[in-house]
Amino acid sequence: MSKIENARTELVQILEKTEKGNSPFEREIRQLALPVVKAFVEGGRVAPAHFGDSSEALPENKEAAGVPAGFPGLYPVTGTRVLQAETVNRPQASGKRVAVLFSGGPAAGGHNVLVGLKKVLGPQNTLLGVKNGPKGLLEGKLFEITDEALANILNTGGFDFLGSDRTKIKTSEQFNQVKTVCHDQKVDALVVVGGDDSNTNAAVLAEYLFKNVHADGRGVQVLGVPKTIDGDLQEETLLPISFGFDTATKTYAELVGNILQDTPSSRKYWHFIKLMGRSASHVALEVALQTKPAVTFISEEIEARQYSLAHIIDIIARAVARRAGRGINHGVVLIPEGLIEFIPEMKRLIKELNEVMAASEKMLSEINTMADKKHFIYGKISPEATKLMASLPDEFENMLLLDRDSHGNLQVSQIPTEKLLIEMVTTRLHEMKTDPKPFFGQGAGQIDLKPEEVERFVKSKFASNNHFFGYEGRCGAPSRFDAAYCFNLGITAGSLVLAGKTGYMAAVTNLEHGGRALALPLTGLIHLERRHGKDEMVIEKALVELESPAFKFFNACRDRWSREDCFASPGPRQLWGPVSSQLPMTVALNQGYTGLHFDLGEEVKLV
Amino acid sequence: MSKIENARTELVQILEKTEKGNSPFEREIRQLALPVVKAFVEGGRVAPAHFGDSSEALPENKEAAGVPAGFPGLYPVTGTRVLQAETVNRPQASGKRVAVLFSGGPAAGGHNVLVGLKKVLGPQNTLLGVKNGPKGLLEGKLFEITDEALANILNTGGFDFLGSDRTKIKTSEQFNQVKTVCHDQKVDALVVVGGDDSNTNAAVLAEYLFKNVHADGRGVQVLGVPKTIDGDLQEETLLPISFGFDTATKTYAELVGNILQDTPSSRKYWHFIKLMGRSASHVALEVALQTKPAVTFISEEIEARQYSLAHIIDIIARAVARRAGRGINHGVVLIPEGLIEFIPEMKRLIKELNEVMAASEKMLSEINTMADKKHFIYGKISPEATKLMASLPDEFENMLLLDRDSHGNLQVSQIPTEKLLIEMVTTRLHEMKTDPKPFFGQGAGQIDLKPEEVERFVKSKFASNNHFFGYEGRCGAPSRFDAAYCFNLGITAGSLVLAGKTGYMAAVTNLEHGGRALALPLTGLIHLERRHGKDEMVIEKALVELESPAFKFFNACRDRWSREDCFASPGPRQLWGPVSSQLPMTVALNQGYTGLHFDLGEEVKLV
Repeated sequence: MSKIENARTELVQILEKTEKGNSPFEREIRQLALPVVKAFVEGGRVAPAHFGDSSEALPENKEAAGVPAGFPGLYPVTGTRVLQAETVNRPQASGKRVAVLFSGGPAAGGHNVLVGLKKVLGPQNTLLGVKNGPKGLLEGKLFEITDEALANILNTGGFDFLGSDRTKIKTSEQFNQVKTVCHDQKVDALVVVGGDDSNTNAAVLAEYLFKNVHADGRGVQVLGVPKTIDGDLQEETLLPISFGFDTATKTYAELVGNILQDTPSSRKYWHFIKLMGRSASHVALEVALQTKPAVTFISEEIEARQYSLAHIIDIIARAVARRAGRGINHGVVLIPEGLIEFIPEMKRLIKELNEVMAASEKMLSEINTMADKKHFIYGKISPEATKLMASLPDEFENMLLLDRDSHGNLQVSQIPTEKLLIEMVTTRLHEMKTDPKPFFGQGAGQIDLKPEEVERFVKSKFASNNHFFGYEGRCGAPSRFDAAYCFNLGITAGSLVLAGKTGYMAAVTNLEHGGRALALPLTGLIHLERRHGKDEMVIEKALVELESPAFKFFNACRDRWSREDCFASPGPRQLWGPVSSQLPMTVALNQGYTGLHFDLGEEVKLV
Repeated sequence: MSKIENARTELVQILEKTEKGNSPFEREIRQLALPVVKAFVEGGRVAPAHFGDSSEALPENKEAAGVPAGFPGLYPVTGTRVLQAETVNRPQASGKRVAVLFSGGPAAGGHNVLVGLKKVLGPQNTLLGVKNGPKGLLEGKLFEITDEALANILNTGGFDFLGSDRTKIKTSEQFNQVKTVCHDQKVDALVVVGGDDSNTNAAVLAEYLFKNVHADGRGVQVLGVPKTIDGDLQEETLLPISFGFDTATKTYAELVGNILQDTPSSRKYWHFIKLMGRSASHVALEVALQTKPAVTFISEEIEARQYSLAHIIDIIARAVARRAGRGINHGVVLIPEGLIEFIPEMKRLIKELNEVMAASEKMLSEINTMADKKHFIYGKISPEATKLMASLPDEFENMLLLDRDSHGNLQVSQIPTEKLLIEMVTTRLHEMKTDPKPFFGQGAGQIDLKPEEVERFVKSKFASNNHFFGYEGRCGAPSRFDAAYCFNLGITAGSLVLAGKTGYMAAVTNLEHGGRALALPLTGLIHLERRHGKDEMVIEKALVELESPAFKFFNACRDRWSREDCFASPGPRQLWGPVSSQLPMTVALNQGYTGLHFDLGEEVKLV
């Protein structure tokens, strides 16, 4: 064999070993040390903390009427008082069997929650994994998690070690199933890693399993860990962010930054980019702060200011025209996934259509042509709704009339909002170019461009592209922040188990100065919310507040970002080197930090 | 002001300074030192090398008849002989004015080519930037590039510092314009950073400007630098890869890896991912080697083996069924952008349709309904073509009958291949589930599953998602390899200028052991190719060779990758730390390297 063939054989052997999660990157990240909040360190090793009363409580407005009655076992114990990690009286429990499950969509860092749990539980307790989320819990699919298995998933992305699903545990039959599984498999505590709905579920489970699960009358402790890439599980300074948000936004921000860098390079496209986030626009806001694109929509603002679809088109068209007037025929528009549902008139329109179509389902099924269908429906909806429908491009008008889900609702997530906006902006720009007079000048609402700028705009071309970044951001390798944060959340949850607590969500705050571990009472997070026509006790989704420092900062910058290229490219997230310790900008702003670096204590070597 | 408000003010000031390319990441990458090939270092500083004859020549089969006659000035001087950098007789030229331009789509690392050029030209020569590519050259848009400007773009992505465009310089009027610009602006040399077409253009320009541009009879030197994210500008061991390929594939591979990690986490989707690469499938092959998905198509293989569309559907459907039989209801399919055009029967069909539609343009414009249009066209194409059309989903059948470009050709890039495959695979799976007998068993062509596995498949659900990764990969911050490679390509091109050479492309090889700088004669790269019905002298696109080590390695692994999850997650590309020096796997395999790390010499601090 020739020298070159020998070399290839050597390389082939290296490459064959990269299968099944053994890329050069994955091999190295498993060696990364992680920082541990001071309260959890004793003699250079991870140790459980005691949790005692802090001086803080969850805001009173959360304590909705009905919650104490809904949680008769839990509420008197947990209430709204926040607990904090303390180094005195470290719990010494042993022999505990703790089960952990992932619930809902994956988020980066979940595996490190398991590592943190295992580390703090130590060999004197048992950590059990639940296969495939709540469904697996109902089916009793539990297995013991070993140190070896964890060494393999340390700092890796995804939820694949356990799997996840979206089953909601609601019926008393399901509650009994859980009780039976916990009884039969001698489970002392259950850790639910999930978003707002899953933590609501954890609260209800905590109440249900509060006592009398085991023969001696003991219950099963239930603890929650805050996960969601959408970032809508937050609680002021008591819960700065859910895990997974940082990795997701860093992943999207790199891609948006790359595309922004492309725009003045190829000088011909406007890119319309939809980002995950159906309910809240934290993701869009964070990505905007990191990248500074020309236009970013925040759903909460659109709802609060009652923007119409036409006004949204107007905002984009103005930005395009102003930039074209200055010779900049490119830009980026960021669109949160849920935008359509936050435009009040669209929301009303969709509601009217859903109602009419549900009421006339049979009749409609007998109408053959789309034209006749429209004629029928338009006779039954309000004039405003009819007018709005008529303003939509045909394709989207038709989309609104098709495909109801099993509950008779339009599947809004199926609507390609980014394409709808492109089509309507294209039409508007055509109008503006055909007859510029009404649009440009010094008058109210007019765009203040010089005549030669208007001329340049009229001659300019508008070419567009669209993207949707979603799944790409859920399962990436956790950023250094998410890796560290999750490890400490896991230690917090494990400490709470050892300290005998139930009905709390693990939280880590003070992210800039060493971290502070807290336990937030789930009963203090729950409030009453009207859903599908009845009151439900749920954890409220945290939306973007227009008065928050992050939004206000965005608001102060965006006109400048819209007029000219101000973009920055955040680059791929770094696990090593000088920019590996960066916090989300929205979090740093809202928490009142002085800088962008996190500090979660001293690093502890894990393998 | 409260303490927290003070903190916010401090942070706001930090954030305001991140605009215009000053993200924390961008600030730090500008400080990264870059390695320099030994031949270019003297006394710890970058120095130009002399270029002398090597023992190597470009392969004779490239030397098509007609090339010597087509390049009467250049060919006798450059021929096919490769030059190599030598440390003796370093060129001492001064007072040279060198113009550089970007041509075609952006690729990561272009800015570092400029830095390398400037560094080696030194203060005794002048580097001029051409604004907006070949078009800017025709318009004489040249400006002097300063050290300060370069310090700002060092290691950053994009082509935005100069801009680019796709103008081809072809007509004698255009050649004269270039001559005039070079004469008037006293340009001694022109460096063209581009792909195969742009380097073909560089060759023609080198010939045209060979002499008599300046009053004293001197010509203008023209040098090429190999750029393209598609990786189809390669030449065996003499040109291992074009720049930009590594960054693009690392960017895509991270995303594909993230999605692969998502599949067993959420356990419900097959993701169909289209990747850039219309002509060659190097990108798909590299991403496949890095991530190991269930199915990857390589266009060159499909063409070589004459696969039908039905066979491609079959490959995917079999993979889905085999995995579903084992309880794995997820996977990833990688699709090169140009797939459709490489399926021989589709290529013939499109050609037939183009011809019929061009010949009957007027007639067709008078036919109103799609059904009548189809009837008319199907009467004029071959029975095979008609049959293939009938096998397509309606939506795609219609797509093929619409929207010809100004040359009467179907815009194949507009066809969402990933969606076409999803639709046809869904139909096929439905057939397989409805009547599994013909598909499963021990017979020829049947899928060998056990009865209980067939049953599991029949009960399984197939849910899909689609993605297209393209623009995201062109303008990312260069990987450490692209950053280093481009810097050395720039130094190579600059050295060639100072050494008085013309008609060469810069190349750096021996990437694993310190690097070796070469000059490839453009006349040796050019051959005759039939394009649009006539012979043209062009640089051939390098396609994926089915006999290459990279393809053979892929071929040896893919069945295993298809049967079960073997994926790896390459993670975000790292600029610091232990995995920052990784080469593309296809390059390492094809070059016969022993490992994955590049070594391009000692690092030189640049700022």
